[in-house]
Amino acid sequence: MIGQSGIAVKRISRAEPASVAALANHGVATIHEAMGRVGLMQGYMRPVYPGAKVCGTAVTIFAHPGDNWMLHVAAELLQAGDVAVLGTSSENTDGMFGDLLATSFRARGALGLVIDAGCRDAAELRAMGFPVWSKAVHAKGTVKATVGSVNTPILCAGALVHPGDVVIADDDGVVIVPKAEAPRVAAAAAAREAKEAKTRQRLAAGELGLDIYGMRESLAKAGLRYVDDEAAWAKEWRK
Amino acid sequence: MIGQSGIAVKRISRAEPASVAALANHGVATIHEAMGRVGLMQGYMRPVYPGAKVCGTAVTIFAHPGDNWMLHVAAELLQAGDVAVLGTSSENTDGMFGDLLATSFRARGALGLVIDAGCRDAAELRAMGFPVWSKAVHAKGTVKATVGSVNTPILCAGALVHPGDVVIADDDGVVIVPKAEAPRVAAAAAAREAKEAKTRQRLAAGELGLDIYGMRESLAKAGLRYVDDEAAWAKEWRK
Amino acid sequence: MIGQSGIAVKRISRAEPASVAALANHGVATIHEAMGRVGLMQGYMRPVYPGAKVCGTAVTIFAHPGDNWMLHVAAELLQAGDVAVLGTSSENTDGMFGDLLATSFRARGALGLVIDAGCRDAAELRAMGFPVWSKAVHAKGTVKATVGSVNTPILCAGALVHPGDVVIADDDGVVIVPKAEAPRVAAAAAAREAKEAKTRQRLAAGELGLDIYGMRESLAKAGLRYVDDEAAWAKEWRK
Amino acid sequence: MIGQSGIAVKRISRAEPASVAALANHGVATIHEAMGRVGLMQGYMRPVYPGAKVCGTAVTIFAHPGDNWMLHVAAELLQAGDVAVLGTSSENTDGMFGDLLATSFRARGALGLVIDAGCRDAAELRAMGFPVWSKAVHAKGTVKATVGSVNTPILCAGALVHPGDVVIADDDGVVIVPKAEAPRVAAAAAAREAKEAKTRQRLAAGELGLDIYGMRESLAKAGLRYVDDEAAWAKEWRK
Amino acid sequence: MIGQSGIAVKRISRAEPASVAALANHGVATIHEAMGRVGLMQGYMRPVYPGAKVCGTAVTIFAHPGDNWMLHVAAELLQAGDVAVLGTSSENTDGMFGDLLATSFRARGALGLVIDAGCRDAAELRAMGFPVWSKAVHAKGTVKATVGSVNTPILCAGALVHPGDVVIADDDGVVIVPKAEAPRVAAAAAAREAKEAKTRQRLAAGELGLDIYGMRESLAKAGLRYVDDEAAWAKEWRK
Amino acid sequence: MIGQSGIAVKRISRAEPASVAALANHGVATIHEAMGRVGLMQGYMRPVYPGAKVCGTAVTIFAHPGDNWMLHVAAELLQAGDVAVLGTSSENTDGMFGDLLATSFRARGALGLVIDAGCRDAAELRAMGFPVWSKAVHAKGTVKATVGSVNTPILCAGALVHPGDVVIADDDGVVIVPKAEAPRVAAAAAAREAKEAKTRQRLAAGELGLDIYGMRESLAKAGLRYVDDEAAWAKEWRK
Repeated sequence: MIGQSGIAVKRISRAEPASVAALANHGVATIHEAMGRVGLMQGYMRPVYPGAKVCGTAVTIFAHPGDNWMLHVAAELLQAGDVAVLGTSSENTDGMFGDLLATSFRARGALGLVIDAGCRDAAELRAMGFPVWSKAVHAKGTVKATVGSVNTPILCAGALVHPGDVVIADDDGVVIVPKAEAPRVAAAAAAREAKEAKTRQRLAAGELGLDIYGMRESLAKAGLRYVDDEAAWAKEWRK
Repeated sequence: MIGQSGIAVKRISRAEPASVAALANHGVATIHEAMGRVGLMQGYMRPVYPGAKVCGTAVTIFAHPGDNWMLHVAAELLQAGDVAVLGTSSENTDGMFGDLLATSFRARGALGLVIDAGCRDAAELRAMGFPVWSKAVHAKGTVKATVGSVNTPILCAGALVHPGDVVIADDDGVVIVPKAEAPRVAAAAAAREAKEAKTRQRLAAGELGLDIYGMRESLAKAGLRYVDDEAAWAKEWRK
Repeated sequence: MIGQSGIAVKRISRAEPASVAALANHGVATIHEAMGRVGLMQGYMRPVYPGAKVCGTAVTIFAHPGDNWMLHVAAELLQAGDVAVLGTSSENTDGMFGDLLATSFRARGALGLVIDAGCRDAAELRAMGFPVWSKAVHAKGTVKATVGSVNTPILCAGALVHPGDVVIADDDGVVIVPKAEAPRVAAAAAAREAKEAKTRQRLAAGELGLDIYGMRESLAKAGLRYVDDEAAWAKEWRK
Repeated sequence: MIGQSGIAVKRISRAEPASVAALANHGVATIHEAMGRVGLMQGYMRPVYPGAKVCGTAVTIFAHPGDNWMLHVAAELLQAGDVAVLGTSSENTDGMFGDLLATSFRARGALGLVIDAGCRDAAELRAMGFPVWSKAVHAKGTVKATVGSVNTPILCAGALVHPGDVVIADDDGVVIVPKAEAPRVAAAAAAREAKEAKTRQRLAAGELGLDIYGMRESLAKAGLRYVDDEAAWAKEWRK
Repeated sequence: MIGQSGIAVKRISRAEPASVAALANHGVATIHEAMGRVGLMQGYMRPVYPGAKVCGTAVTIFAHPGDNWMLHVAAELLQAGDVAVLGTSSENTDGMFGDLLATSFRARGALGLVIDAGCRDAAELRAMGFPVWSKAVHAKGTVKATVGSVNTPILCAGALVHPGDVVIADDDGVVIVPKAEAPRVAAAAAAREAKEAKTRQRLAAGELGLDIYGMRESLAKAGLRYVDDEAAWAKEWRK
Repeated sequence: MIGQSGIAVKRISRAEPASVAALANHGVATIHEAMGRVGLMQGYMRPVYPGAKVCGTAVTIFAHPGDNWMLHVAAELLQAGDVAVLGTSSENTDGMFGDLLATSFRARGALGLVIDAGCRDAAELRAMGFPVWSKAVHAKGTVKATVGSVNTPILCAGALVHPGDVVIADDDGVVIVPKAEAPRVAAAAAAREAKEAKTRQRLAAGELGLDIYGMRESLAKAGLRYVDDEAAWAKEWRK
């Protein structure tokens, strides 16, 4: 069950590497659209420094407010290419993660962290180039007293994450691609990006979305009416 | 009426160019003060990247939560020197605007966007140098289903904006100067800045605001009492 | 009493310089831990620009919402090495402090400002390198109408601050070290950092916190159970 | 200009009494719909006690954070049937209004208060049956130091309010009907309510909105597909 | 996939009635504890009127911000004993649900609604005794333009809800019991309540939890030290 | 030091009973004013049911997020007439306190609880008439793993509380009167209330605060200008 404490799963199946590599070519917005506008975490998850970007396979962590014990358990289970993703049993912004754990995670091959709580040592993380997405940056220390879980399904910032899913994060937020969907989504993202490249050229040349997407008729049908100027509008509506 | 849907006004009167150019020399804080401390949007409107700055004439957009259709309608009505300003019918942080629309807006001559909702493609906007002030950065996609309006008066983040008003935005937020007030405010801002330059020199030389502004007497009248040290204070007040 | 208005204390005792200098070598997270996880301000206090860092002795300011009069009173009482710390009588995010006051504070020798309200002129503060930690950046102007106090004990963002206490602030937030505790905390912080340097090396070499800190037994005692894989886990728990 | 301080307008034109009386028969949701979904204040404006309801003509107040001076100025300008509506120059939740001012307002004939800030003496207001909609209930006291305005246009919780407009407030929030629109909106609200009464009967009898409003075809066109059961759905989508 | 639009599942399996009836005897806090502290929605979900309580089987609804179309689709699929549970694709507090839909839902046998958005007609809902838990009460109207889904798994206020799961809601919030867990959780809740009844008696008689739960030793081991009085404490710690 | 863990002080000095009894006659707003507008907790502290009121002596509790162990330690140290006041080491809204602890606290003579976190069993607390002021109502359970302190000074919702201080709470919030100040504040509150009773009579008779408090001259001096009507105002200011 989601939110069960006391379990660490040693071996998990991960999304296959080719799809992960393909997804790494795209941004969060593109992938979220390519999946059909699903899988996105809530907007309060922000990178600790601008320009941060990561794409990897999820090692999931379930932890309790103000308690970072499970991050140490997760360190052992991280492999090259993983991104740790932490959800909590209740809202909390304590600084559960800092430069020591980042050093450990990197030594194990992890590429980054997504944490629905706080992190600290922000300057050191930026200097190391170890990307973290969090709810807050705060020096507040945590205890090691209550066990949670590692590698069980979690909820993190409004997204359901299974171990081994693909995690993509950048300046626009964090999106989760279920491992079984990774090949399909990678293909759809590439197709979308190719199509957008053409649209971008046309827009840059001054063409309008109204014409490229053929919106004029549907706008009129939906009730949009053009008036010549403010005087024409004022005749009809009082301010 | 504020918040009416279904109207796009084709031609609007804009603040006259000389005043817009003059206002571009000043920051948001100075202009807000020069107007008599009015016209400021709420503090949650933040630039997508630090150092962003814009000054232009407003093309106003009224849109519905999770629906970015009207941004395409606005694109056609933007002219060189305009800043798009979008208000919504209810609170929303979806990413209504991204690099494709930015490409289109720039091609039409627009200088930037102020949006009381979310935007996305933050990294691309920073790379393009297309400045956006928003309530949030979030990849969340939007639909094109319900019409709003373009170039009617709107409320945006606690400010009333008429089409053609001057929009100034920087790291300190966003301020709106009604078009008819633009010459007066530009002059007042210049006067204020000139005066502040002199004050800055005196303060840099170690003079005190207490003396420059002559506050000592009014402080005493308002009840401020100096005591020599903590012991003197402790005698009177118990902690 | 905390929150008393109408008093300015001219002479205060400050933490002794050697301890302040020693504390300047450490970050907020380290010092907060070295004190026993106390003294931290709430997480909403953020630096106006990333990478800001300060360590100095507190000159405390108590002010009312939307009123920055007391900052001028404080300017006169600031000495070289001080950091101004401002608490308010109720929540407010108006821009009480900008580049003119920063110029004045710097001329008096102050190193920075911690303000449980808003500040403005963010771009200028960044250009000056005058570090400010605040609840918000907002251009909103303030009045000079109601007296507060200077150099009396205040509450600022959830921390109790006495005049002369040591204030350390960086990307992780703001921590207050009571002046009497400064020598002890400086020593404890140095010891902690030395110990962490060794741990960092071991972690970088791939050793696990589980082993370095000897957590395996206590985790098992607290109920953590390892299972081999997702199939093994699924047998026990239904999703 | 919106947000100008220093003006009190003695005589204002008010919405005509027949329309105000007619609007009093309807709830906020109905009136907001009858106007075309405009005029609503933001959702954080809540009644101090459940079941509160008011309909009257607006006397507008513009005040500064933590300063309730203008409420006293407004008292003199209130007439029988008025509702005071207060907007502020920046966000604040201090308790600007309590049972003394309520006593005064009632003696002048006012029916209630809408305040984009805090109020206090909640138990007394409930006992008096004097309805207040506010952002917060808080005992925090305020000063009388800075002038605002009375009976100039204001922004209050995201709505533009002119003196004399109709204010309707109940458990669902607060809506403003511009005085010139009052007759039209009152008629539209009555028509809507009559129509809803019939729909309510049909719904109570078990008929579906799908059929009453004829939505089945448009839902299908918009892409809704019915599947027989979870097994049928599971075949197509992986969880 | 969670968050897929465009599907309505006609027939779902529901938790078996005996377990639902058994769970109806317990409060949200008890059930949440009996499950092992899982299944709880976030704390912002509040009853529209105090004292509301419901226990039934979930019909799930996935909707878009500001769009209540799917509630009409759900009405047809509701059966006696159901509770509608609505999650959205992004944060929104518009009033998606009011007394007309409540009339329809009740006519179909539904017992209540849990909605991660706003509702309106609060006074009418209270009068009808139709219980709703929501994020907000707000009159804001919504459109019917974009399809979501009915009876697919959803995320609602931080809880994963499958169609047919048991929903229990009261003054303390909302908890979801997966249908397969219902018998086990009902039994555990009854056992917990029986045990608590005995504890309550002992506590009412003045016995201490310290003794009933045998906490004295573990507190001492965890570092709690008793001192006689404030003077004894002051000797060790400086304030 | 504020925020120190691991101490329980057995005997504390309490405010003398006569002052506590006298303070019980007044509301929070009156007492806060009588003290000079200090001592108030932040406005998010709300009673679990309307009409709750308490006045007693503080037993202070310092606890960690999601951990209610210290409430059991406090139970033993509570005496007749006490009010428990709990602050935490970081923000948390878990339901730390429910009907079992309320039963225990009442059996020990405690009159209520003020908790800067969540509580649960809201319906039972209302039925018992055991008043609680909290940041949230939420069923979320807590652990007993980390020790805090009892009867040391704490910060609770922005107020400094020493053991034995007087706690007064009602619908307007919570105020703390330092024990040494209790006699003075009780007298000042009585004087204030007597004066307000007279003012209330005059206001009820239609007299204006403007005249009773003699504000007309100071308003004019501060810049308030009366104009006859909207037309007169419009001449000067453009909308």
